[in-house]
Amino acid sequence: MSLERWTTAIPSLDESAMARARERQDRLTKPQGSLGRLEDLAIHLAGITGASNPRLDHKLVIIMAADHGVVVEGVSAYPQEVTSQMVANFINGGAAINVLSRLVGARVVVVDMGVAGDLQPAPGLLIKKIGSGSGNMARGPAMSREQARKSVIVGAQVVEDELQNGLDILATGEMGIGNTTPSAAIAALITEHPVHEIVGRGTGLDESGLARKVAVVETALRVNNPDPNDGLDVLSKVGGFEIGGLAGAMLAAAAHRKPVLVDGFIASAAAMLAVKLAPRVRDYLIASHRSKETGHGIMLDWLGLVPLLDLDLRLGEGSGAALGMWLVEASSRLMNEMATFGEAGVSTRTG
Amino acid sequence: MSLERWTTAIPSLDESAMARARERQDRLTKPQGSLGRLEDLAIHLAGITGASNPRLDHKLVIIMAADHGVVVEGVSAYPQEVTSQMVANFINGGAAINVLSRLVGARVVVVDMGVAGDLQPAPGLLIKKIGSGSGNMARGPAMSREQARKSVIVGAQVVEDELQNGLDILATGEMGIGNTTPSAAIAALITEHPVHEIVGRGTGLDESGLARKVAVVETALRVNNPDPNDGLDVLSKVGGFEIGGLAGAMLAAAAHRKPVLVDGFIASAAAMLAVKLAPRVRDYLIASHRSKETGHGIMLDWLGLVPLLDLDLRLGEGSGAALGMWLVEASSRLMNEMATFGEAGVSTRTG
Repeated sequence: MSLERWTTAIPSLDESAMARARERQDRLTKPQGSLGRLEDLAIHLAGITGASNPRLDHKLVIIMAADHGVVVEGVSAYPQEVTSQMVANFINGGAAINVLSRLVGARVVVVDMGVAGDLQPAPGLLIKKIGSGSGNMARGPAMSREQARKSVIVGAQVVEDELQNGLDILATGEMGIGNTTPSAAIAALITEHPVHEIVGRGTGLDESGLARKVAVVETALRVNNPDPNDGLDVLSKVGGFEIGGLAGAMLAAAAHRKPVLVDGFIASAAAMLAVKLAPRVRDYLIASHRSKETGHGIMLDWLGLVPLLDLDLRLGEGSGAALGMWLVEASSRLMNEMATFGEAGVSTRTG
Repeated sequence: MSLERWTTAIPSLDESAMARARERQDRLTKPQGSLGRLEDLAIHLAGITGASNPRLDHKLVIIMAADHGVVVEGVSAYPQEVTSQMVANFINGGAAINVLSRLVGARVVVVDMGVAGDLQPAPGLLIKKIGSGSGNMARGPAMSREQARKSVIVGAQVVEDELQNGLDILATGEMGIGNTTPSAAIAALITEHPVHEIVGRGTGLDESGLARKVAVVETALRVNNPDPNDGLDVLSKVGGFEIGGLAGAMLAAAAHRKPVLVDGFIASAAAMLAVKLAPRVRDYLIASHRSKETGHGIMLDWLGLVPLLDLDLRLGEGSGAALGMWLVEASSRLMNEMATFGEAGVSTRTG
């Protein structure tokens, strides 16, 4: 199967649906523009879906999980085993993303894209391992180019499969101890910002850990010398299996006119790779929040996205995306359910 | 009945419940602090309610409505009749606040605190008229001191009554054509900022309307010379019946340890008056959003509140408060429903 199935299939936003949505916004019982970004969001949603009254009945959170060889360099405050332990927590419904998904009414699908070791099969867990953890990018490429391509295709295929179960809006989550490190490498390379402006404390590094992480990212970029304009080259050299999977999920969602809530630092790195593979995917992305992780704002700027929330979150899992999903639903409900001035018999403005 | 029933009855935050909540946050399966403001919010909620696992089953949006004599000065883009027409829209479920309340699972109660003319009785509408619209504050006081006191007491009594129906969290909404004008007067007086830094376009004034509104607020403050340290004096001279009602609702909610979501510009003016009447009420207020209306940020700074959302909203009705209510619920659900490291068998940090 070829990646082009998705990268060449992303349509433009539907300008006609957007015009109809904009016209409806101006007839609803409120001063024009008074719902601010919720109006813009509803109009954007119309452009994405092609419907001026988009419904978001089927909400899906996809959590891509993988391990990272670079953890041997001491770049995370948590041991690698936490990746698979947290996958079990997701399956058992005890993680933050489970709580938020229940609250927003979203299904959760967890995908093993390359967790180290074997996971027990379980309902809600898809085993799609590309490898048993990536290679240590400080010493060489994180994966082969073929594995990179495969991770993107597998991610896209997960979305294709989930469309059969109903999918109106997608939130992108991830789990992978160490994965802020490859994400920072991707971001520094593509935005051309110095590594120290991008690298953050992840799950909670101290000062010396932070300095070590900066050095590791610099080393990985020097050792591998990825081509910033070749998304698969970047992914293979300084990426991760879950990052490739998320990029693929975004491409497939966009190809099917489904809105995608981008979560935080790692999901944004995946979004940058998706944009490198197919620039038009950007139109289908909604930035849910600005993470507290250093450099996330720089990534959002590069993506040209303005986040909906700014709550100092730095958890990942798709937690910010699930919160943002609720605001997107609010925006569409407002557009679809509010009365117009005519329907409600409310006078319009005088001046 | 005396206002002191509420102003002297507001307890301190429960430090012990906050400590227990903080301790629980640190045992949940996430890096410490990684849920950012949602952790702070859950801890705050524990302090407000006195429970380290606060439940928010009964959500209430109170919309206080009234008219304003100052509209004859041409300070609004909409005619006065829109106040009562929008009350009908609230009752019929067609307004933005109805859509958002349904989505967040909140009851809506509309209170006629002083709409001009008589409203038809309807389920969900409480007729508590203090007067048939306030006086024109550009020519004299908006109301008598006795009416001011009564509006606060009536607002508090509405909350007392609603406690019988179940009330775990309150969102403060309002409707009143012209009511950004008294709110701006209250804010300029209390924050000691120049009127032109506070006054905004409300529902959509043009340049000349904006200049006129600034002049009207300046005139109202000069003509009435309210004492900024006497909340009832400020309310009577440059306030409104719904603003007094909201201040009272906030005081009563705080006296019963219920969290209050402050909506936008008008609700914040009411909050400032509530703080003038009983400074401790501040601990029970949660700023839902930063409105696009000029000067709202200055009001929030004076209140010492950091808003949860910043979405360029400027609608009122409690729309921002209903959105914020969902984030508050998310914060409490996360604290109550997430698994701990021990329960989930997840390893804690190594360094």
